[in-house]
Amino acid sequence: MCAEVESDGVSVTNRLRLDLAYDGTDFSGWASQTDRRTVQGTLESALDQVIAPNAMGKHFAVTCAGRTDAGVHATQQSVHFDISATEYESLVRHTTLTPEQALLRRLRGVLPADVNVYSATLAPNDFHARFSALSRTYTYKLIDDQHFMHPIFRRDTFFTRNKLDLRAIQQATKPLLGEHDFSAFARVRKDQSPIRTLHKFDWVKKPLDLPAFTAEKPYFIEVTIQANAFLHNMVRSLISASLFVGEHRMPAEWLYSKLQSREREGKTGPVDACGLTLSAVEY
Amino acid sequence: MCAEVESDGVSVTNRLRLDLAYDGTDFSGWASQTDRRTVQGTLESALDQVIAPNAMGKHFAVTCAGRTDAGVHATQQSVHFDISATEYESLVRHTTLTPEQALLRRLRGVLPADVNVYSATLAPNDFHARFSALSRTYTYKLIDDQHFMHPIFRRDTFFTRNKLDLRAIQQATKPLLGEHDFSAFARVRKDQSPIRTLHKFDWVKKPLDLPAFTAEKPYFIEVTIQANAFLHNMVRSLISASLFVGEHRMPAEWLYSKLQSREREGKTGPVDACGLTLSAVEY
Repeated sequence: MCAEVESDGVSVTNRLRLDLAYDGTDFSGWASQTDRRTVQGTLESALDQVIAPNAMGKHFAVTCAGRTDAGVHATQQSVHFDISATEYESLVRHTTLTPEQALLRRLRGVLPADVNVYSATLAPNDFHARFSALSRTYTYKLIDDQHFMHPIFRRDTFFTRNKLDLRAIQQATKPLLGEHDFSAFARVRKDQSPIRTLHKFDWVKKPLDLPAFTAEKPYFIEVTIQANAFLHNMVRSLISASLFVGEHRMPAEWLYSKLQSREREGKTGPVDACGLTLSAVEY
Repeated sequence: MCAEVESDGVSVTNRLRLDLAYDGTDFSGWASQTDRRTVQGTLESALDQVIAPNAMGKHFAVTCAGRTDAGVHATQQSVHFDISATEYESLVRHTTLTPEQALLRRLRGVLPADVNVYSATLAPNDFHARFSALSRTYTYKLIDDQHFMHPIFRRDTFFTRNKLDLRAIQQATKPLLGEHDFSAFARVRKDQSPIRTLHKFDWVKKPLDLPAFTAEKPYFIEVTIQANAFLHNMVRSLISASLFVGEHRMPAEWLYSKLQSREREGKTGPVDACGLTLSAVEY
């Protein structure tokens, strides 16, 4: 619970970590944009409001583990930001709560219904939401049978009319595990390495608690994909390309040869954002 | 697959059954209303459009298993309606589909994203969506811990800040099973019997696939309630009253004494509709 005191004795800051969840449907993604509703913008405004309500123009900037695109959800996004010791202590007024608990309660009082902050903790001053993260896990939910398309799922599940061959997909995706150049499946910036290490790329059927109108028991498909870090559009491009295999429009071997080509093309354009959720960040 | 031919040989009708699901959030309930968006109104317009597109003013009226209130969802709602043999046969044009498959495909083409028809079948002419139903099952979803409040769930899950004692609720609700006068927990019309038979009223914790920020594993509470039929507001009133017991604001015995009183009051007013789903109709 102790903050770092710098040698000049002037700036004493506390690094706070927040873990939050959001429904990305009505956000233009994570990163702040002028005149657009974003998760970062919404969270930072809430912080300004609850930490420094009287300090006009004071702004708290947060750093996140993974910048999610428009329409992408999160069950766990992690951020850090710094506040002065004075601001930290001023969070507690007439209550028996810790500063973190007080912050959490106040944030919940002002945040909209599509963002929830689960947890606020004092982090070590060298904790970095982005650089300290060892890996990120995303999940993608799909329903490939119209008998199981309950409309309530449409906010976070992608509906496709084409039945998927998961065995073909598993066969195709296995060679992609490990360290590779993922240029074929991402928008790579010039100053960036296209090398990433893919830890997990699983496609499994999970039961849905719905009435059955066919011989098949209702299910959805959950894709779990974990890497040390992801390039821009990488998760959705890998899934999009896998769907070509799952629909038998391309053979299983195509996916690995595509990886080796390092060439981006139409088939590896990103799949719909609605099914995607940043589900965990591992530190 | 044969339609009933009446003795005068003129009117030949087919009775069709549809099973559908909907996200009730943006509907003013099931029953048609002038100038309001309702599930019945939406479904009937779709039927008019796909069965008799050229018959101006022709209207198909459906009868449902249970009229859901504004904001209530369904994973299974069942309806029936009648169409003439000519209309039935005209559903198939240049395709190898059955009339039912053709109807299903056309309905899906015109229905909005918050309604899905799973199944269309030719029913016996004495099938009645309401009167043939042996029982109805509703589910109600709750989250009672803010650490588990993922915003994506807010459309069909009720969030409460008060931890619930499920053991107390189970003890309180058990004596309500069986045949009783449920006047204390419903809006009973004057021409209506208040007697109903409650088959099931279960409260269970189910795991949520979310990251854990406390020692407790993320869960939600699923209430399953089944009866031969329900009075207006009965499901939500029973749940609302049970919450008073679960929050230790009333003792467990109060629920049964409330039943015996046959008097409605504030504590048995309906809980929020968003958590409620008509989940099955048993024929």
